[in-house]
Amino acid sequence: MKNYVLTPGPVPVPEFVMLEMAKPIIHHRTAEFEEIFHKAGQGLKKVFMTNEEVMILATSGTGAMDAAISNTLNRGDTTLVINGGKFGERWGKICKAYGVNFIEHIVEWGKAVEVKEIEEILLKNKNIKAILVQASETSTGVEHPIKEIAKLTNNRDDIILVVDGITAVGAFPVEFDKWGIDILIGGSQKAFMLPPGLAFISLSKKAWEFTKNSNLPKFYLDLNQAYKNSLKNTSPWTPAVNMVMGLNAVLEYFDKQGLENVFRRHTILSKATTQGFESIGLENFAKGCTSTALSVIKSPEGIDAGDIIKGLKEKYGMIVAGGQDQAKGKIFRITHMGYVDKSDMISVIAGVEGILNEMNYPFDAGTGVSTASKILDTM
Amino acid sequence: MKNYVLTPGPVPVPEFVMLEMAKPIIHHRTAEFEEIFHKAGQGLKKVFMTNEEVMILATSGTGAMDAAISNTLNRGDTTLVINGGKFGERWGKICKAYGVNFIEHIVEWGKAVEVKEIEEILLKNKNIKAILVQASETSTGVEHPIKEIAKLTNNRDDIILVVDGITAVGAFPVEFDKWGIDILIGGSQKAFMLPPGLAFISLSKKAWEFTKNSNLPKFYLDLNQAYKNSLKNTSPWTPAVNMVMGLNAVLEYFDKQGLENVFRRHTILSKATTQGFESIGLENFAKGCTSTALSVIKSPEGIDAGDIIKGLKEKYGMIVAGGQDQAKGKIFRITHMGYVDKSDMISVIAGVEGILNEMNYPFDAGTGVSTASKILDTM
Repeated sequence: MKNYVLTPGPVPVPEFVMLEMAKPIIHHRTAEFEEIFHKAGQGLKKVFMTNEEVMILATSGTGAMDAAISNTLNRGDTTLVINGGKFGERWGKICKAYGVNFIEHIVEWGKAVEVKEIEEILLKNKNIKAILVQASETSTGVEHPIKEIAKLTNNRDDIILVVDGITAVGAFPVEFDKWGIDILIGGSQKAFMLPPGLAFISLSKKAWEFTKNSNLPKFYLDLNQAYKNSLKNTSPWTPAVNMVMGLNAVLEYFDKQGLENVFRRHTILSKATTQGFESIGLENFAKGCTSTALSVIKSPEGIDAGDIIKGLKEKYGMIVAGGQDQAKGKIFRITHMGYVDKSDMISVIAGVEGILNEMNYPFDAGTGVSTASKILDTM
Repeated sequence: MKNYVLTPGPVPVPEFVMLEMAKPIIHHRTAEFEEIFHKAGQGLKKVFMTNEEVMILATSGTGAMDAAISNTLNRGDTTLVINGGKFGERWGKICKAYGVNFIEHIVEWGKAVEVKEIEEILLKNKNIKAILVQASETSTGVEHPIKEIAKLTNNRDDIILVVDGITAVGAFPVEFDKWGIDILIGGSQKAFMLPPGLAFISLSKKAWEFTKNSNLPKFYLDLNQAYKNSLKNTSPWTPAVNMVMGLNAVLEYFDKQGLENVFRRHTILSKATTQGFESIGLENFAKGCTSTALSVIKSPEGIDAGDIIKGLKEKYGMIVAGGQDQAKGKIFRITHMGYVDKSDMISVIAGVEGILNEMNYPFDAGTGVSTASKILDTM
């Protein structure tokens, strides 16, 4: 059976990107590779919407999350962790590993953080040095209001806003410079349509100031080393050469499409998928705060999401992601990032309809597909 | 012009490996990928010559060097750094970053460390908790006597032997279990014939004990996390999926060839290359302690190695590496690792002969090639 990977990371990689990465290796300390590295850095600036340097790390996304903490903070500092899912929770784990205190603001899974609540916490805790948050929480499909949160931090020089944009950057606009984000992180295996293995990170001038006072130890993840080398179009340690070659192919593709059209594709796929499922009674888990990077759909009352996921795999070769922890068995998650398009969304809705039909779930078969189709036709 | 990458990392990647990595992405939290990850781990054990778990990190080699320090030591501990080149020097930099004291034993570039000298240092400094050394120092082409050094540490439980085998593991035998190494590190872009982006690391039971007492902070590079997940055939953070797929293709290739034949190929390529160059008066920089992973050749008196390197690139499309720091302009470095074979060695010797001829360097043209050929014919 043909397989359709529809998970929100890793995502399907276009053939032209795979073939670019399959080209003969280039030595990294050559003018030829420096040009490639430079081009990638410039292209990333556009997607990060910044004039700051975007550094390319040979790690997966968590490596850059670690670097964001270990390069800017000190043992005993206090941060505010916005924990509305598995990746929000990870911020706390990283703080703990580095002896950084954190106030954990728990947000109900499927809901976005309330900016007002952050404001209150900041008022009560003047010592908070960083807000740690996700632009798009992959475990719940929620988009947190980064633009609004940034308003609380960008006129203060004693606090930075650190944004895990791994499932956001390239999927929808996260305006680093304009909003006043201090650290933004991206990952290769998401909207960048590459395999996992690269992380991207950019720092504001304020965040770079924080690095000067940070005494947490780091070496491989030392961002000042990465920065100094990035200005010379290289990296301090051996870069993941072929991945960077592939990255350029993706960035060129973005350029050709126009970034606004890349974002628009995600928006329409998201709208079609969530509304398609809603039309047959399956709720959008992140209703009202939906990240357009992925759809997180609740399985109907009495039906285990695991059975839907299993059915999709066995009957249609479709791989979607399930829920983690408290959401296990309750949701399934579908990517809009990566090399997926209209037909993939139609297929997965049709697949779920087929499975629900067999389960005698009451609905008008075909409604999901036709609802989605109408929206997809606007693309 | 056709390009021939002959640098000692990155090395040429076989087409079948590139194509394996160009296969459709697999989600990492699936039974299918767990099987791939498991197979890779088992294959690595053979190359590492160990029954211990070999962990796969999504970093380049330096990430694993960092992890070796940050997972086993404490601020204020003392180590012995064997610094006989750029990578030996790096051990000291990592220690410094983590507040670990180190006694730096400087070894002349091109020479192997004297075991007797290490013994004396250990006698005088009972507080040394780790010896940090390279099995093969890529900047000089030297093989350090790991087996002999291990005899100084493997009957003591208060000191570990940490070996950077990035340019050694897979190139020649580094017998983890038999010799009693405590930490051994490998890298994808060397004898494993992959692009850069993966590091491999294994720890002895003694080294795992050290991790229990280490209070240096780490998160992305936390080896206990990697270990726990490795036992479940996965990694704590998103693994570099396609690289691991490629790794399996290489490990299968090693299996088919027989590891002893892989090692033998490197030995013969090394012997042919060094003796070929010697026969026209170009010295082996690492004479008497030659790593078979690469040849490091001195340019003749009065000839800048940079001119040879430039000539190889411009006239023959061959990319070899130059010397760094004190060796700049004095040496050039040729890989025996990766997808290179007899003809590549013949070509590079012929290329250098051609360049030297033009420079009116006095020698019997063809001697280098014919000397090497005779040795290569024994393969």
